[in-house]
Amino acid sequence: MPSNTRVLLAARPDGWPTDATFRVDEAPIPTPRDGEFVVRLLWLSLDPYMRGRISAAKSYAKGVEIGDVMTGSGVGQVVDSKHPAFAAGDTVIGQFGWQEWAASDGAGVMKVPPGPLPLSVYLGTVGMPGVTAYVGLLDIGAPKAGETVLVSAAAGAVGGVVGQLAKIQGCRAVGIAGGREKCDYVVRELGFDACVDYKSGGDLDKELRAAAPKGVDVLFENVGGPIMDTAFRHLNPFARVPLCGLVSQYNETVPYAVASFGLLLVNRVKLQGFIVSDDMSKWPGALAKLSGWVAEGRIKGRETIAKGIRSAPAAFVGMLRGGNIGKQLVKVAEA
Amino acid sequence: MPSNTRVLLAARPDGWPTDATFRVDEAPIPTPRDGEFVVRLLWLSLDPYMRGRISAAKSYAKGVEIGDVMTGSGVGQVVDSKHPAFAAGDTVIGQFGWQEWAASDGAGVMKVPPGPLPLSVYLGTVGMPGVTAYVGLLDIGAPKAGETVLVSAAAGAVGGVVGQLAKIQGCRAVGIAGGREKCDYVVRELGFDACVDYKSGGDLDKELRAAAPKGVDVLFENVGGPIMDTAFRHLNPFARVPLCGLVSQYNETVPYAVASFGLLLVNRVKLQGFIVSDDMSKWPGALAKLSGWVAEGRIKGRETIAKGIRSAPAAFVGMLRGGNIGKQLVKVAEA
Repeated sequence: MPSNTRVLLAARPDGWPTDATFRVDEAPIPTPRDGEFVVRLLWLSLDPYMRGRISAAKSYAKGVEIGDVMTGSGVGQVVDSKHPAFAAGDTVIGQFGWQEWAASDGAGVMKVPPGPLPLSVYLGTVGMPGVTAYVGLLDIGAPKAGETVLVSAAAGAVGGVVGQLAKIQGCRAVGIAGGREKCDYVVRELGFDACVDYKSGGDLDKELRAAAPKGVDVLFENVGGPIMDTAFRHLNPFARVPLCGLVSQYNETVPYAVASFGLLLVNRVKLQGFIVSDDMSKWPGALAKLSGWVAEGRIKGRETIAKGIRSAPAAFVGMLRGGNIGKQLVKVAEA
Repeated sequence: MPSNTRVLLAARPDGWPTDATFRVDEAPIPTPRDGEFVVRLLWLSLDPYMRGRISAAKSYAKGVEIGDVMTGSGVGQVVDSKHPAFAAGDTVIGQFGWQEWAASDGAGVMKVPPGPLPLSVYLGTVGMPGVTAYVGLLDIGAPKAGETVLVSAAAGAVGGVVGQLAKIQGCRAVGIAGGREKCDYVVRELGFDACVDYKSGGDLDKELRAAAPKGVDVLFENVGGPIMDTAFRHLNPFARVPLCGLVSQYNETVPYAVASFGLLLVNRVKLQGFIVSDDMSKWPGALAKLSGWVAEGRIKGRETIAKGIRSAPAAFVGMLRGGNIGKQLVKVAEA
């Protein structure tokens, strides 16, 4: 008899997640109650923000409780419905969690619009990462043509879109990524003007100077730590810093202390932390723009795909270590 | 024969200014060339930003060169003029430097409006410090009634106005200052709701929690270093941080590294470095408002007054060490 394979939070990690952090179990496949529908997941999205949801420390969203199914968004098909707005056969995106089947009351669930794009794109370039890049870069970064945009984790799902949007805005797009393969991807496939490999063993400061000779007007920050501290030294007067993530810090027990903070004053920098889900009013416009650019091939991105829901914990930790290129997904089932 | 006593920059300090940093000399009293006028200074303003102007490190303004008269704004009387817009007897404010007499072409010089306010006020509550408080708090901080505004260096020329403006906006005003006398001044004379004495030897974190039990919505930052780092831990979601100064850092050779930087992301904080002279368009409106409130007694501030231009170097270092309450001035001559 088929069952619902789920990944539960077993223990809060102190530092990096371990084998003890998650636990896989088998549960009955849910049936919908009145006002609910049941989804069979096809794709699960893995994103750095999830590390904050399993932390004991205060984060920006309610955490996952011990014993709960891990939180995460996915794309799936409605298989059974007692909900007036959703019918069997609908393809939907929502916070269905790390599991094969999910019951939902429809809160926060969106139907995938008809069109030529593959479903997984709605978890990447035309999903939360794409909207994050769009809102952070355009609303907070406000780049002007001719300016230089620097983005860390440039080969990631968000960073890749940031650089391509910067190019669309007429800016110089410079990435920071770990390893030659990622830098090649960012420059050759995504069209960045330059990418600095922070793992090359070279002098990051000098390499940033060479890649952004006129300084940095917008720093889209995904990483934090010493790389951000060095990047701060390249900020121009009146630079903007959309502060999107600090993935280098999420598994550290002692936070990295930022030495070049004073340059934010010297250069009258505007730095703003943001979480894209704080303002859902921006999503429809952003998604419309992004889907157009993706359909035209002006925005693209690779996917790194793990197979089966049981692979999610290892794929998640791999992503936190920078093992992925582009969007990290779990293929949960065939359509 | 009378001469012009001047204070020149003798050497760039490495760390705190010393006796070798400044040099006093006597020069002839200047006479105006065509298009110039000569001012006899009455008051000189001493401000923390001046430390950046004598630093070897990059700052936000052109530095003072070795052998130049120290930069600084003052109030004085025109004694002789070959300038069409200024006449002998005019009272003016401008960047006249640390000296008793100055020639000027009128660039950046403003006439003191007629009215009941004492002249020194135009270097404090109705001058650059007041406008700094006004623009930083209202434009960047954007406090709403009922919110909590925390300001460091609360007994200083800028901080004192910040708290009084916060009260006018209907906010809870909390200061941080060094010593019981400053805290008493801030609460009893300026009307802050609370003030935390960071020199009390107590637990700053606990004392901030008690003084700002609902957290901090606007942190007007003048000081930096460990006090700011602790204050960051009290920021509410969507807090704003007008970053005005980092006076604790100006004489340090190794910058303090900020450990709680990550909370700017967690709480989606907007932090913005600013220098009030970057946008002069805001001054007339701010000065009009401030002079009204000062005339009504709703904004006030003590003055700490050193006597004679030769006292400027010691008074300047004293101010950087926090020796002053309210606005630090040098009385250069009697009107």
